[in-house]
Amino acid sequence: MDVRLMDGLNMSRRIRRTPYTDRFEQVGVRGFSVVNHMLLPKAFQTSVEEDYWHLREHVQIWDVSCQRQVQIEGPDAASLVQWMTPRDIGRAKVGDCLYVPIIDANAGLINDPVLLKLAEDRFWLSIADSDVLLYAMGLALGRGMDVSVSEPDVSPLAIQGPRAEDLLAGLFGDHIRDIGFFKYGWIDFAGTRQLIARSGYSRQGGFEIYLEGGHLGAALWDAIWQAGQPLGIAPGCPNLIERIEGGLFSYGNEMTRDNNPLEIGLEKFCCLDGSVDYIGRAALQKIAADGVTQQIRGVAFDGGPCPTCSKPWPVMVGDSQVGQITSAIWSPRLKRNVGQSMIARSCWKAGQRVHVVSQDGMIRDGEISDLPFA
Amino acid sequence: MDVRLMDGLNMSRRIRRTPYTDRFEQVGVRGFSVVNHMLLPKAFQTSVEEDYWHLREHVQIWDVSCQRQVQIEGPDAASLVQWMTPRDIGRAKVGDCLYVPIIDANAGLINDPVLLKLAEDRFWLSIADSDVLLYAMGLALGRGMDVSVSEPDVSPLAIQGPRAEDLLAGLFGDHIRDIGFFKYGWIDFAGTRQLIARSGYSRQGGFEIYLEGGHLGAALWDAIWQAGQPLGIAPGCPNLIERIEGGLFSYGNEMTRDNNPLEIGLEKFCCLDGSVDYIGRAALQKIAADGVTQQIRGVAFDGGPCPTCSKPWPVMVGDSQVGQITSAIWSPRLKRNVGQSMIARSCWKAGQRVHVVSQDGMIRDGEISDLPFA
Repeated sequence: MDVRLMDGLNMSRRIRRTPYTDRFEQVGVRGFSVVNHMLLPKAFQTSVEEDYWHLREHVQIWDVSCQRQVQIEGPDAASLVQWMTPRDIGRAKVGDCLYVPIIDANAGLINDPVLLKLAEDRFWLSIADSDVLLYAMGLALGRGMDVSVSEPDVSPLAIQGPRAEDLLAGLFGDHIRDIGFFKYGWIDFAGTRQLIARSGYSRQGGFEIYLEGGHLGAALWDAIWQAGQPLGIAPGCPNLIERIEGGLFSYGNEMTRDNNPLEIGLEKFCCLDGSVDYIGRAALQKIAADGVTQQIRGVAFDGGPCPTCSKPWPVMVGDSQVGQITSAIWSPRLKRNVGQSMIARSCWKAGQRVHVVSQDGMIRDGEISDLPFA
Repeated sequence: MDVRLMDGLNMSRRIRRTPYTDRFEQVGVRGFSVVNHMLLPKAFQTSVEEDYWHLREHVQIWDVSCQRQVQIEGPDAASLVQWMTPRDIGRAKVGDCLYVPIIDANAGLINDPVLLKLAEDRFWLSIADSDVLLYAMGLALGRGMDVSVSEPDVSPLAIQGPRAEDLLAGLFGDHIRDIGFFKYGWIDFAGTRQLIARSGYSRQGGFEIYLEGGHLGAALWDAIWQAGQPLGIAPGCPNLIERIEGGLFSYGNEMTRDNNPLEIGLEKFCCLDGSVDYIGRAALQKIAADGVTQQIRGVAFDGGPCPTCSKPWPVMVGDSQVGQITSAIWSPRLKRNVGQSMIARSCWKAGQRVHVVSQDGMIRDGEISDLPFA
């Protein structure tokens, strides 16, 4: 195994365990990532390729507790949330999940959470890897807003794959079949009412249960694990092959504060007509008027399975760097490497021939692709 | 090796490499932690015990780039910094490093950085593991303050141990011997001027070079590594044995937002007389008036080398839990386990007999100790 794919992770309380970590250890987790100061199981007894095929065909249980919730509650809650995102949340209804980019004053991306509207004055931001809690607290303190900002004891568990709906309908009732994409409903579990959304970080369908009460974690796992046996359930995680092919982006990888949402193709989540006020609006409107100079694209490339991408790889046309790959892996289905890359306007058309300089120093032929990959 | 001591860490761009990561890989780093979305080398070819003795006797080079700098600059910079901390920074001078707890409106700890005053209107906060950048940005945006908040390209490299001063004086000049504890000066390196502070996360003395310009990282490493050969230099990191014995606390381990600075023994960094205004002042004054109900202490305990502490361990007196250990390890010098623990007032006197329930389920005899350990 490439040493850079997986070195050791030193454990401490600071890197928080989740309500499901014990169970994942029991089924043989052997690698983690760290997101929001919390463990994200990322490697199992099986290979990433085996996990990929399994996810596409069966059902998996993922510990995504690291998708922490930032709860914003109170009379000014809706104002604060709207101030944080260029997306117009004015027409959102209770029961909706909304993908909401969060940007700074220069329109640089701070996070790209899913917003859950729980009530007119109560929201959860289900966050990617940055302390949105501290940002929201700072904004509220600075502006003197009447809100409470907190991290509730909520630990999402994702059930992903084509058999997810059958599994969960069997356990919790057929009413979950009626939950629309990016909507949420409720299930009863162990005498409690728990939020369940049709969402998740794959293109294979499925749900996320926002378990409230960490002490129920093992019991929830056990119930799903047991019911999933006939369906071939396996432990899993966001699968790098599947997410790259599917055009799902990762905050900190494909986008950082150096990127604006238009570069990431998030125009449809950005209100640019001036009807909504938010941090970074003037900067974003100017970028939109000028046109972006780079945008995210796929790159398919050759040369056999590429190494792990742990730093940006130059994408070249002739002697000029025209972009950088930030995530890449071998696709066993497409029989090529697939990557996601920020690409300069002059070269971002699908089919453009490029060279990729991968982390092992190899120069690989490839071409620009639209996302998702076919 | 205990599976919980070190499982695999999956690498990606999101977990940022540092200017020194290549060099640490060359000398055989085999484990990391993740702090501020960045790699912190934490394990080498040698054991933690070997590293401990080496640190006490020789000199080590540590990659502490993850101590990211939050730069606050502009007309309102001093006001913003003061608003963030209960410590009175009014008399700080350019050239000073100050340990400044940062607290929220409830006096809960958000971070415990070192503040470097670079100019009357320019500061660096050298942070522990939370996004102080976003918090400061939020406060400034919310209050409409005239400051710029950014993360400069600064990557601290620590040189720690009794031979650190000789090593660096030989390389950069005897003037560094005149730098006082928690003061900083300047060195010339490769045609640049670089900040050097007499500080670091050990009790063995040493310096931290706040290298500005990541492209210089390999050259700085090489210069120090080569000059350190006659002194027996080795790669190292904050050493768990040394820091626990020395009473150095770790944000996220010993303290979280659930703790106030008085529980951590940080009274001397808290202005409680009302002469300085800061977030959380009313809450902190009330806590001070009421008296804290728990405070951090050492615990020495038996039963042979304890496992890795990756979640709080109950500390018991009879059938009552009186505290929790958040960091612990076997001390080869004291021939006992040593831990740091939040302990209830009724039992926090040195010598109090306790039982520790370690992560392996074992019940161990021990007693409360003052910090640092003798």
